[in-house]
Amino acid sequence: MLSQATYLERLERVRQQLAPWGVEGVLITSPHNRRWLSGFTGSAGQLIVTAQAALLATDSRYWEQAGQQAPAFTVWQLGHDREGDFRAAVAAAAGSGAARLGVEAQHVTLAEFDNLARVEGVEWVQLKETLEPMRAVKTEEEIKMMARAAAITDAAMNQVNQLARVGMTEKELAWQLERTMREAGADGMAFTVIVASGPNAARPHHRPGERQLQAGDAIVIDMGAMLDGYHSDLTRTFYLGAEPDEQFWTIYNLTLAAQTAALAGIRAGLTGKEADALARDVITAAGHGAHFGHGLGHGVGLEIHEEPRLSVLREKEKLVSGMVTSVEPGVYIPGWGGVRIEDLALVTENGVHCLSQAAKNPIIR
Amino acid sequence: MLSQATYLERLERVRQQLAPWGVEGVLITSPHNRRWLSGFTGSAGQLIVTAQAALLATDSRYWEQAGQQAPAFTVWQLGHDREGDFRAAVAAAAGSGAARLGVEAQHVTLAEFDNLARVEGVEWVQLKETLEPMRAVKTEEEIKMMARAAAITDAAMNQVNQLARVGMTEKELAWQLERTMREAGADGMAFTVIVASGPNAARPHHRPGERQLQAGDAIVIDMGAMLDGYHSDLTRTFYLGAEPDEQFWTIYNLTLAAQTAALAGIRAGLTGKEADALARDVITAAGHGAHFGHGLGHGVGLEIHEEPRLSVLREKEKLVSGMVTSVEPGVYIPGWGGVRIEDLALVTENGVHCLSQAAKNPIIR
Repeated sequence: MLSQATYLERLERVRQQLAPWGVEGVLITSPHNRRWLSGFTGSAGQLIVTAQAALLATDSRYWEQAGQQAPAFTVWQLGHDREGDFRAAVAAAAGSGAARLGVEAQHVTLAEFDNLARVEGVEWVQLKETLEPMRAVKTEEEIKMMARAAAITDAAMNQVNQLARVGMTEKELAWQLERTMREAGADGMAFTVIVASGPNAARPHHRPGERQLQAGDAIVIDMGAMLDGYHSDLTRTFYLGAEPDEQFWTIYNLTLAAQTAALAGIRAGLTGKEADALARDVITAAGHGAHFGHGLGHGVGLEIHEEPRLSVLREKEKLVSGMVTSVEPGVYIPGWGGVRIEDLALVTENGVHCLSQAAKNPIIR
Repeated sequence: MLSQATYLERLERVRQQLAPWGVEGVLITSPHNRRWLSGFTGSAGQLIVTAQAALLATDSRYWEQAGQQAPAFTVWQLGHDREGDFRAAVAAAAGSGAARLGVEAQHVTLAEFDNLARVEGVEWVQLKETLEPMRAVKTEEEIKMMARAAAITDAAMNQVNQLARVGMTEKELAWQLERTMREAGADGMAFTVIVASGPNAARPHHRPGERQLQAGDAIVIDMGAMLDGYHSDLTRTFYLGAEPDEQFWTIYNLTLAAQTAALAGIRAGLTGKEADALARDVITAAGHGAHFGHGLGHGVGLEIHEEPRLSVLREKEKLVSGMVTSVEPGVYIPGWGGVRIEDLALVTENGVHCLSQAAKNPIIR
């Protein structure tokens, strides 16, 4: 948990956003936005913020915890009639002069909205995004936490050349890596550890299975430790054997060159599309543009995928100092396999500072 | 993954449901419904089912995997313009004579619905539930899988009296239990292992923290292994010390009596409310009704919380043979702590068969 001063400051910033959003209050439904704004880590609950009110509506599992974790919010107890009790919470907050309330269009379901529509006297405004742009810029406290998560991940990745051996299954290696991170203090994994070997490496989000590692495999390992809600994200590609073939070196060096170009060029002020192009142009020039089917990177924080996005689709939004993003070009060749190299980068005015520091030596002897 | 025959049969059953739902096709957005119907385990994708069409729309991360896991579906490739490509998929399916399409109101967001509304010539019908009632009744294959997950969980729970000791933190014990389950073959945890000791045991969903176990603690442990997507769920409450005090025995025996009454009485044909009352009446009669703030149980399967619900709110829906539900009364006393005892029960015509078999001896010497 961050300091209470941070949460009070965030609450104030959200209240200042109400007028620009064109509302007098806002409902926060997204779990990650809820946690970012209140500090509450429970799995269920909604925030209602107006100029006067700051309510956290949650069920009996979390009444005590909510009071402890989110002192800036008044806990509104939802009983057996959750929908009715939640309407009462909204009505209470709206009663203090907030007739126009914003909802998170990306998170509220049709069924939830039907329930909200039953609250009398409230006009609902669908907001495409709410706290996501604020969340994208990290505080120093958050950056320190993510650097710690990245360091745990680095240490495990640097063990791969000790842990991986011919005949071991992808699943076994994934578990060894997870265990290493958990025993080093990770609260959990940012996502299921990816170990994609041989032809499986052509699938960017392969789930580790029963395939045994073979000499001559390219092995993509993508993983991250989670610490106090914050994620890290790191990918390295290895070659199992002392002497990689020409195909491996060609694709590996191309991917590394693309990542190096991106890490050297990304800085505050670029658009997501411009950042993406730094790597994509290198890969396209080598004739492999069609083999790089995903964006160059994504913001990381309380979510493993959050703002910003380094993507051809982001022509307007500019990177801002304090954002933390993955930088992960990949080249995937169906039937053969693939290579991806990813680091976690803090964006500054002058360039990036990598939070991840794992070695980039692909050879596993 | 289940047999392909199972998925083909499910697709046929969903097509037979289209008329009762009042639609000519349905969009499946819920990840668990998607997996149940298609076998596809990726993190993103939508199913579109009409009398003629069975599409699985997903992005480039999953094109290859989707084709392998869901041969009954045609993979519709979503490119960079995901929203536009998805509208094209819907239009293609609707073009074959399906003008009224159902959407899952509990899962589709306002933003997703805005995109769907742009598809011309389609009338949208909001469905409160779709596959959930079908998913609640398990096949033999599913029950076997869940019994295996439960057995892994049982074996770890039976280690608690070896693993727990004074001075260990909740987090350390939680990790030892998780490691035991993972090394016994669990793919992951059904949810973060709960170890709630001393006063923390008053919080039904406490997250294990730095509190050290003390002699005289009541310790609630709630956990489950996940195996091939299927969850298990098991809670036992322990007392750290050879001679529990009177308060512990009173609350422990009350909770056990309530659970015993429920396990003896639950059978197909009862409503969720009647099942809940079997345990709740025992606790209320002892004057602790206000300390049992959650329902008696919930269905378990591809989701950790799914249909059915054993709850005072379920006055109509009846339990059906083949359902698998948790049975978990709890008594929580703020300041003191709490007791919860939970098993995973298969509902049959004649009563329940417990998939979980962990010992119920609370004493840790």
